[in-house]
Amino acid sequence: MKKDVIKSHAGGKVEMSPKVPINSYDDFSLWYTPGVAEACKAIEKKKERVYELTNRWNSVAIMSDGTRVLGLGDIGAEAGLPVMEGKALLFKCLGGVDAIPICLGTKRAEDIISVCKWLEPSFGGINLEDIESPKCFYILEAASKKLEIPVFHDDQQGTAVVVLAALKNALKVAGKKLDEMVVAQIGFGAAGSACAKLYMKAGVKNKNVRVVDLVNGKPMILTEDQKGLFPYRSSLLKGTNGDNVKGGTAEALEGADAVIAFTAPKSIKKEWVKRMAGDPIVFAMANPVPEIMPDEAKESGARIAATGRSDFPNQVNNSLGFPAIFRGALDVRARTISEEMCIAAADAIAGVAEEKGISEEYIVPRMDDPVLYKKEATAVGAKAMEQGIAKVSLSKKELAERVEFTIDRAQLKLLSDYR
Amino acid sequence: MKKDVIKSHAGGKVEMSPKVPINSYDDFSLWYTPGVAEACKAIEKKKERVYELTNRWNSVAIMSDGTRVLGLGDIGAEAGLPVMEGKALLFKCLGGVDAIPICLGTKRAEDIISVCKWLEPSFGGINLEDIESPKCFYILEAASKKLEIPVFHDDQQGTAVVVLAALKNALKVAGKKLDEMVVAQIGFGAAGSACAKLYMKAGVKNKNVRVVDLVNGKPMILTEDQKGLFPYRSSLLKGTNGDNVKGGTAEALEGADAVIAFTAPKSIKKEWVKRMAGDPIVFAMANPVPEIMPDEAKESGARIAATGRSDFPNQVNNSLGFPAIFRGALDVRARTISEEMCIAAADAIAGVAEEKGISEEYIVPRMDDPVLYKKEATAVGAKAMEQGIAKVSLSKKELAERVEFTIDRAQLKLLSDYR
Repeated sequence: MKKDVIKSHAGGKVEMSPKVPINSYDDFSLWYTPGVAEACKAIEKKKERVYELTNRWNSVAIMSDGTRVLGLGDIGAEAGLPVMEGKALLFKCLGGVDAIPICLGTKRAEDIISVCKWLEPSFGGINLEDIESPKCFYILEAASKKLEIPVFHDDQQGTAVVVLAALKNALKVAGKKLDEMVVAQIGFGAAGSACAKLYMKAGVKNKNVRVVDLVNGKPMILTEDQKGLFPYRSSLLKGTNGDNVKGGTAEALEGADAVIAFTAPKSIKKEWVKRMAGDPIVFAMANPVPEIMPDEAKESGARIAATGRSDFPNQVNNSLGFPAIFRGALDVRARTISEEMCIAAADAIAGVAEEKGISEEYIVPRMDDPVLYKKEATAVGAKAMEQGIAKVSLSKKELAERVEFTIDRAQLKLLSDYR
Repeated sequence: MKKDVIKSHAGGKVEMSPKVPINSYDDFSLWYTPGVAEACKAIEKKKERVYELTNRWNSVAIMSDGTRVLGLGDIGAEAGLPVMEGKALLFKCLGGVDAIPICLGTKRAEDIISVCKWLEPSFGGINLEDIESPKCFYILEAASKKLEIPVFHDDQQGTAVVVLAALKNALKVAGKKLDEMVVAQIGFGAAGSACAKLYMKAGVKNKNVRVVDLVNGKPMILTEDQKGLFPYRSSLLKGTNGDNVKGGTAEALEGADAVIAFTAPKSIKKEWVKRMAGDPIVFAMANPVPEIMPDEAKESGARIAATGRSDFPNQVNNSLGFPAIFRGALDVRARTISEEMCIAAADAIAGVAEEKGISEEYIVPRMDDPVLYKKEATAVGAKAMEQGIAKVSLSKKELAERVEFTIDRAQLKLLSDYR
């Protein structure tokens, strides 16, 4: 079985294709020299036209150094490449985005930032992927400042979007409110800290968040003055844990309405869930083995349990986010992907599930939802325009049509492709 | 018309496509997580398997800084992008190679070399393109040393291959011999110097080559001790101009069997061609306006005239080279593209035309020749194996089949593609 899985990846998963008709070899004199010179000269005269006369408008570089690939750790650039190809596949199939897998032969943060900057003229956006923390915080921050195209770290921001969407619907099912709930945030790495950042931005009160991470190898509730943290993470801790709870994971869960865990497999005990507030929400995101299995969480009184796994209900899966977030950002040429755009994406994801009717077992849409990506991309693009960070101005209807055209084209191509 | 040409480039010319079947959304659990982890682990265990389990085996980065785009000069990275997309189209349609257009936001040689090195794990080769000289000599030399995958500068090596192929057949038609002919090499930039290097390697005697380039703004026959040249070019001048001819272009042409010009439009006079040896060969490669128009060259006694233009016979066109050169190099995983492989490519190109019957008006095949690219790629790959610089060992038949499969697949896909 394992061998068959490996074999199926033989030869690679993505390739380049022509996007223009080639009826005879004479057509190359249009697509290449001498015809192409007219497109070059037009862009030379007005640089912006590169978005009109090349595929840059739809191109994203998936940039990794292979230091934190899936749950496998620092396996190196080459070994990370199959993941980036898989991601490119999802980008195209779900969002119609042309994403180029790039695994780098350097792990230095400054080098990675330089590559992003140097590759900027050829791409409409950069998706950082599977880069270890705390380096990833610095790279995201520095590259975002240096580049005029969106730089997005999916392991941080993409995860936060889908978790927020799931959390919002879980709260509705459990009859709780974002601005009243107490959250135990277990694990404060790339994903955990980005989730906390986004749900606090979306309405969770800082004082109601208890953050647990390893201190000298032991899970401890962090305080504002925690030493050795990347400044960005320290700043997120400000005002958290208003009740001044002391201890580790068990204490953080006590009386909490929700636990959101990105930490070690089987690290949450049933009795800890039993001591949470009524109708608790348990997101156990360690993959493939979660902090607590959904059935155990339920047995311990959890109203809603979610994981990253596809073999349980409520799969909180990044693939619900990034293809549409970039689709929306690209279609309005957003300069960046703001927190507000991320919240708009989360609301759209939550909304699509809600329209169908949410329940304990259905808080987020599935990947094959036929309207999800279009609605989400449109919401993201609209928010960018509203915030004045879009370089393209469209009516909501024009934006929806543009999004729809590209996603439909990708899916039509998928169906008709020769294999 | 110009407007229509520009418009036809709207939206871009290449895109990413899935290479694997996607019959339902559940398939993503094979192509992405969790299934993809098996491919990652296999590569982590044995790095070489990245060539088997990803598309790296067939991927080439087209790398430019936009400093010497077509005849347009330093038009910038963005304005160069349409050319790189056109090149990617040719790579795929003619050689079945997946080439990624990358125009860099830096012009520093050291930066460009670094990007090549850092991108190495994701690609099977690097095609440098439209980078100004003399910087391009240094970048090619340094990057070739640093990388274990082929680094090729098409404006140098690719041009030299096709010129050598044309020259060999022109000599046959004119009844001259490579090792006896006198060549006037007019223009000693990236293309000119690479051509001289390759035809001298292929048999033209150094003493029989007269190299002309600008000295203080004036075309002069260069001597070995010419100052201010990049070392690589100085070394090429060693032993040239054995007759110690002095002067400029006119003097260099006097009594020469062939002139190969990569210089300014209309810079060669009819009377100079008249003073060449009998049955002279005139390659006037300035584009779109050659050094002398083919009809003028013929009127002045040229036996064979060739240009870079598609509207005259004997178009010496890079597209006859690079798609097959990379196809061959990739299919045997050559570590580099050696001069011997370039000569093998030239011989294959010349051979395909010769089989059809060469004449004054037909010294190189056309781009739509149905066997050219397969024969050429097979010859290139076979030479790499013979030289011991291929990482894959195949019989000639296996190699030919591999080459054929990929080229046929690309062309079949081309025909069946949805547009």
